[in-house]
Amino acid sequence: MTGPVSSKGTEKMFEQMLSTVGHWLKEKGPDSDIVYSSRIRLARNLRGFPFSNQCSEQQLRDIISLVRSCSNRCSRLKGAQYYSLKDMAMIDRQFLMERFLVSRELAQTSGEKGVIVDAAERICLMINEEDHLRMQVLRSGLMLSAAWEELNAIDDEMDSHLDFAYEEPWGYLTACVSNAGTALRASVMVHIPGLSMTKRILGLLQNAGKMQLAIRGLHGEGSELLGDYFQISNQVTLGKSEDEIVEMTENLTRQLIDQERSARDDLMKNQKIVIEDKVGRALGILSGAKMLSTREAMELLSSIRLGVYFGMIPGMRTETLDSLLIGIHPAHLQKRFPEHLDPLARDIKRAKLIKEALKYGEG
Amino acid sequence: MTGPVSSKGTEKMFEQMLSTVGHWLKEKGPDSDIVYSSRIRLARNLRGFPFSNQCSEQQLRDIISLVRSCSNRCSRLKGAQYYSLKDMAMIDRQFLMERFLVSRELAQTSGEKGVIVDAAERICLMINEEDHLRMQVLRSGLMLSAAWEELNAIDDEMDSHLDFAYEEPWGYLTACVSNAGTALRASVMVHIPGLSMTKRILGLLQNAGKMQLAIRGLHGEGSELLGDYFQISNQVTLGKSEDEIVEMTENLTRQLIDQERSARDDLMKNQKIVIEDKVGRALGILSGAKMLSTREAMELLSSIRLGVYFGMIPGMRTETLDSLLIGIHPAHLQKRFPEHLDPLARDIKRAKLIKEALKYGEG
Repeated sequence: MTGPVSSKGTEKMFEQMLSTVGHWLKEKGPDSDIVYSSRIRLARNLRGFPFSNQCSEQQLRDIISLVRSCSNRCSRLKGAQYYSLKDMAMIDRQFLMERFLVSRELAQTSGEKGVIVDAAERICLMINEEDHLRMQVLRSGLMLSAAWEELNAIDDEMDSHLDFAYEEPWGYLTACVSNAGTALRASVMVHIPGLSMTKRILGLLQNAGKMQLAIRGLHGEGSELLGDYFQISNQVTLGKSEDEIVEMTENLTRQLIDQERSARDDLMKNQKIVIEDKVGRALGILSGAKMLSTREAMELLSSIRLGVYFGMIPGMRTETLDSLLIGIHPAHLQKRFPEHLDPLARDIKRAKLIKEALKYGEG
Repeated sequence: MTGPVSSKGTEKMFEQMLSTVGHWLKEKGPDSDIVYSSRIRLARNLRGFPFSNQCSEQQLRDIISLVRSCSNRCSRLKGAQYYSLKDMAMIDRQFLMERFLVSRELAQTSGEKGVIVDAAERICLMINEEDHLRMQVLRSGLMLSAAWEELNAIDDEMDSHLDFAYEEPWGYLTACVSNAGTALRASVMVHIPGLSMTKRILGLLQNAGKMQLAIRGLHGEGSELLGDYFQISNQVTLGKSEDEIVEMTENLTRQLIDQERSARDDLMKNQKIVIEDKVGRALGILSGAKMLSTREAMELLSSIRLGVYFGMIPGMRTETLDSLLIGIHPAHLQKRFPEHLDPLARDIKRAKLIKEALKYGEG
């Protein structure tokens, strides 16, 4: 990551965000000890325009304009903020991605693109990604149904003002055929160290295709698998109703939760010392290290999160760890400091940030 | 390591030893922050007997008898204890090896063999190793000359009562030709993390042959390189006088000490954070881990020893670490407990022992 530490004028814009994590994360939904977040995303395109990558600059601007004026009339998006990605520094785009508000793809290139985010960072509308409009609702814990209900209502409101491209028998038309039909993606981000330590994760990874699930890293397609955090999402968008897809993904996640709890029980019964060792070392390294890469920090925080689950670390709160999971990423770290940080300096700041957060219980 | 936890009757014999480390280590000789120990060893064989591996049981017993009665008359060996290795359990032989009182070779097989050790564990006489008699003096820090002076006096006393095999122009006859001539081995055990971290150790390893030095692990030939501890010894025993060999080895060690200090200075100047990170992590892991292998423990203690050198760990004493360097080895750990420890149980006890020692500053 090089370049300016912030886009001109965005310092103030992100100031509020930097001081906290998205409000959605603080809700602590059901099973949030294993399910970090639930997310539903819908892809939509406006009739009368080519897909984003074929649009002229003017067409892209027109789309932004249409979506923005429509969202202003949408009751659930009252007070939402629009961020133009045009001319936005790489670091700021990455910052939004680290908070799960824009996709990796949207973060990697600038241009006539933008994102509308509500105050809780629970709802966001990406404009001119691969599709003209990608709307998502993000919730803490296993709340796919609730997220879908909310997103469905937003979709209805937007639909009443915009002309979405829809053709029978295909359903919603999308830039990539893998999204056609419902254009709905239901995903959960799960923390499954138990399945990982017992190697049962291998079975899950092998059978993912059969279960029509995609398993990826924290930030979706192409992102690294870190600290036993996985993003799991449906692969089928066509031939099933939205409700069916959401229900199916929710059921599979419930099974996964059961498997993870059972793996953790087994570990505690048969390998307590191995867990205590893992947790003790993680605490020790975090308290003693002077530099930490994102990868190592994620892995250590993952072990600590498991320790909290087992009640091994009095006073430590999962919320602190879950906030850090966002805060330790490069752009978040960089934005806390006025000077440009090279990777070594970032690793030093990261170690310090975690030490302070764990000591004072602040996220 | 399997088998009984102690030879019958040796529990009492080793009780004293187990409660402390050899007195020689407590002396804290010159440059002991880098040189853990200096050792001089002489190999001798008795005229009229074949080399040990060709001797009959009776001949071996006769040699033991001759050496023991001679050592009883040696003023410097007053009060020394004789340990017969015959029927001694593997664990006890290994215990003696971990204290540097018998060689790996002597520890690995039982039979008509033994060792005479003085109360300070500074002088020891191995009987019926590869040679009939191997006498050594062990000192803390760089004290090769002093060790040689002492061993020379012992050799003179022993020589006045025993008929050592000596032939011009070969000098002392030894089972292995590499020891012929003076049959003297001068060695130092050095802790050189600075040369290791700066990779300058590679030059030393490459040039060892040219400098006529052998570089090995803590317990000599065939032992592992652990925690940046190396044993360095002369390779030439023939064509030079004893004084010349000792002086040469001492001079080379002095150069090595200078190089190590200079490497540490450079590290502190240019990579302070890297050292602080290494030391901080080592402290963290030792305080948090519930199990530790010998290898990992050695490596962590090595980092802590470097931290003590730089004054980074108030209250921590090198003596504690140097005692642990002996105490964490398998036989030493096993002998603290009445029940047989499997490797996992040993790793757990090792982690506990170190935690207690570092917390209370006891070795």
